[in-house]
Formats: sequence, structure tokens, C-alpha cells
Amino acid sequence: MTFKAAKVVIITEKVILEQVAQIIESLGATGYTVFAAGGKGSRGVRPAGRAAVVDGFSNVQIEVITATHETAEKIAVEVADRFFQNYSGITYLEDVEILRSHKF
Amino acid sequence: MTFKAAKVVIITEKVILEQVAQIIESLGATGYTVFAAGGKGSRGVRPAGRAAVVDGFSNVQIEVITATHETAEKIAVEVADRFFQNYSGITYLEDVEILRSHKF
Amino acid sequence: MTFKAAKVVIITEKVILEQVAQIIESLGATGYTVFAAGGKGSRGVRPAGRAAVVDGFSNVQIEVITATHETAEKIAVEVADRFFQNYSGITYLEDVEILRSHKF
Repeated sequence: MTFKAAKVVIITEKVILEQVAQIIESLGATGYTVFAAGGKGSRGVRPAGRAAVVDGFSNVQIEVITATHETAEKIAVEVADRFFQNYSGITYLEDVEILRSHKF
Repeated sequence: MTFKAAKVVIITEKVILEQVAQIIESLGATGYTVFAAGGKGSRGVRPAGRAAVVDGFSNVQIEVITATHETAEKIAVEVADRFFQNYSGITYLEDVEILRSHKF
Repeated sequence: MTFKAAKVVIITEKVILEQVAQIIESLGATGYTVFAAGGKGSRGVRPAGRAAVVDGFSNVQIEVITATHETAEKIAVEVADRFFQNYSGITYLEDVEILRSHKF
């Protein structure tokens, strides 16, 4: 009763949420979920002067369910290429199973 | 040292959190985790008049670890059947590994 | 374009976040993400007098991406051994895929 789908997870700075959302939608995903997140990390390349430690909940985690692994990977690649030189961030994919009868 | 378990993830409207929690407990799960979530989505069937865009953190993401894939799927099916005609929502399953020595 | 990595997820009480973060860093992880979480659960062994129901967002979910399954499991085991006798908590592992060109 389930079928395989993919999830792409993007953790990055809150200030680029709108731009990341535009990429997600432009690549055909029909929705995404956003969480306030904190943490600490060596995430991508940080320009000099940007703090290495991210405190409080100044980050966001964005999760997108996609029908195919290919779409999930396209989103991850596009977000990383566009933003992770200038903003801290990581992105990764997971396998998920969706109920066959439901849209996403 | 680990064994396979399942995770069911439910993203839906905050107003039905209590009812979803009751379903989770009635199907034998011993606990769940709740996150405030925002986002945007074509999630399930929305009745006319309900906004298509979900702003702020008016959604919740509920995660439940279950011993078997069967229990995870039962929870997903029951929640979708009961609520996703009238409330926006998606649900999906993931495989996880739990430490053998720990309850969940 | 992706390679396999692991994710360890720890859900526990907010009061031990700093101590959990120290374990994560001491075992070689370069970053982690933290979310405010609520929920309800039979999570680990609770000492008498500790409430069984966790309300509001007094919990945290900590997620760590690691290059190997071994490191993820070490973190899970160390956190469980150190804290889950005295604090409620669960920990589990997931498989993820990271873009080859990106650090984590």
C-alpha cells in the first residue's frame, strides 16, 4: 500500500528561505515543510567574518517530499550550487514511503 | 547492536494534533514527538475556502517510532483516512535503526 | 553524485543539550542541528517522580550527519549510556545520501 519516494532535507540560514523555496517550486515540487533550527556546524564554505557557531534558532530546516530521487537530487544540487559558497548549509537525501492513495 | 524499526511522519494542521495523538496511542505506540512546522503545500484534498498556502508555524510534524513497519503503516492509513479529506496533511514512513538495549 | 552517510537522531530533555553536544563533538562530528520538540513518551527509564508526560516544547531533537554508520552508532550508544538512566530520551539511526562535493 506504499510506494517509494524521496525526501530532500536542506539546513541553512533563515535569510535565504524564500530563495530556497523558489528553487524548490521551480523544480516541480508541490510543497515543503519548514522548521526553526539551531545548531553548530562546519557547513559548506563560510566567507571570512561569518561566525562559525550558529546559535539560537537562526537556521531553518526545509524538507521536501518528491516523487523521484532524481527531483530530490536536482533540488539539493541547485540549492548547494547557488548558496553554499556564501551561506552555511548542508543538504542530504533520504528514502521514504508514501501511501499510494495520497498526493504530496 | 541495532535493530530495524520504523518511523511514521505526519505533517498536518495544529488544530487536530490531539486527535492524531489519540490515534497514535490507540494503535499501540508508546510515544511520539511533535515539532512546530510551517511550509506550503498541496497536501491532501482541501475543502473550498481553505487557504492553499500555509504560513508561519501553524502546522505540526508528528514523528512516531514503531517496532514494526506494519504499525507505522496502520497509523499512517488511519490518520490519512480520518483527516486528510478535511485537513491538509501528508504522511510517510522511513526505516530507522534503534539501539537494541533501549525501549521506545 | 551522492554518497552514503548516516544520521543519528537524539530526542531528549533540553537541560542536557550542552552535555549531549559535547559528546557529539568529542566523537568527531563537525556539526549538529537542534530543534525544539514536544511530545509524550515512554522514553528510556525514568526515575520515580519524573513526569511520564512531556508537555510543551521542553524536549530537543538533535540530528547529526556522520560520514560512517560506525560514528553515528558510537554517538547513539554513548548518549544512551550516559543519560538515559536519568533522563528521558530515545536515539535512532537513519541512512542518508550526501552530495559528493559538499562537506558536512
